[in-house]
Amino acid sequence: MSAIDQAIKANQTYARKFELSGLAMPPAAKVAVVACMDARLTLEPMLGLKTGDAHIIRNAGGIVTEDVVRSLIISQQLLGTREVMIVNHTDCGMLTFKDAELRTKLLKSTGKLPVVPAQFSAFSSLEQNVRDQVLKLKTHPWMLPNLAVRGFIYDVKSGRLSEVSASEERKAA
Amino acid sequence: MSAIDQAIKANQTYARKFELSGLAMPPAAKVAVVACMDARLTLEPMLGLKTGDAHIIRNAGGIVTEDVVRSLIISQQLLGTREVMIVNHTDCGMLTFKDAELRTKLLKSTGKLPVVPAQFSAFSSLEQNVRDQVLKLKTHPWMLPNLAVRGFIYDVKSGRLSEVSASEERKAA
Repeated sequence: MSAIDQAIKANQTYARKFELSGLAMPPAAKVAVVACMDARLTLEPMLGLKTGDAHIIRNAGGIVTEDVVRSLIISQQLLGTREVMIVNHTDCGMLTFKDAELRTKLLKSTGKLPVVPAQFSAFSSLEQNVRDQVLKLKTHPWMLPNLAVRGFIYDVKSGRLSEVSASEERKAA
Repeated sequence: MSAIDQAIKANQTYARKFELSGLAMPPAAKVAVVACMDARLTLEPMLGLKTGDAHIIRNAGGIVTEDVVRSLIISQQLLGTREVMIVNHTDCGMLTFKDAELRTKLLKSTGKLPVVPAQFSAFSSLEQNVRDQVLKLKTHPWMLPNLAVRGFIYDVKSGRLSEVSASEERKAA
């Protein structure tokens, strides 16, 4: 059975025991989490969040891209979130390649040449990457002026979250 | 206490009981889920996924943006996923506004005028939105040729997932 067919079957069991029909649209804890898509991060138990508490935005690397800014604007302006938590993690796939290598691999695999300057946002320092994402939001003109933004690294071996200090100076990439 | 401080505290409890240190980086079920950021979707129990099974990509609306394509390329080319499940949901915030209204609200709220053609991807038909996202991936030159892509709507009142048929013709927006 395909993974999708298995998920459809599992959802039938989930729906039979469903008791969350009363939840409101705005996140109860007024927080948005921006995290990596990595399969080893199950954010709700990891962060003690209940269903209905938080907007959860995820992409490869937990990078603040234009699309993340789009989602955060909607989150803040229409649905009342006031804090953003950025979560990267150890052993991240984004530490294992260079953008140029992936462009070559993609060309070989699909036979299609990227027609735009395709950027995959691979990085070499986890701490610096987290600091950069926090800085992007803190200096972004469309984020709420009093928004709380903090960055974290999740250790996939221990389950532990550590905050990345924002105090160090930005090092040139 | 701020929501972020509460999450840090909850994680200390989570880490004390942590037993998932042996998980590998590639998703065990070889599937990527693209879903809305909505707080009422806790995807793993909803889809019967275990920690380590799936890449989870989320943004406002569960829209296939350039950033989602970036994440899916990394997911497929470097980490072996072969199926994509798109999950939108009933009572979505994206059905409640128009892009132009949000641009005005943003200008009033931050005093900053958008300098790029800011697009928020609000939509008016849930089914059509899901079909559009599936179509974007099925016709995207950088996706794997034999990729399985299926679209779903999750009902936040019943917990039930319904598949959106891909067979209907694309209607003009």
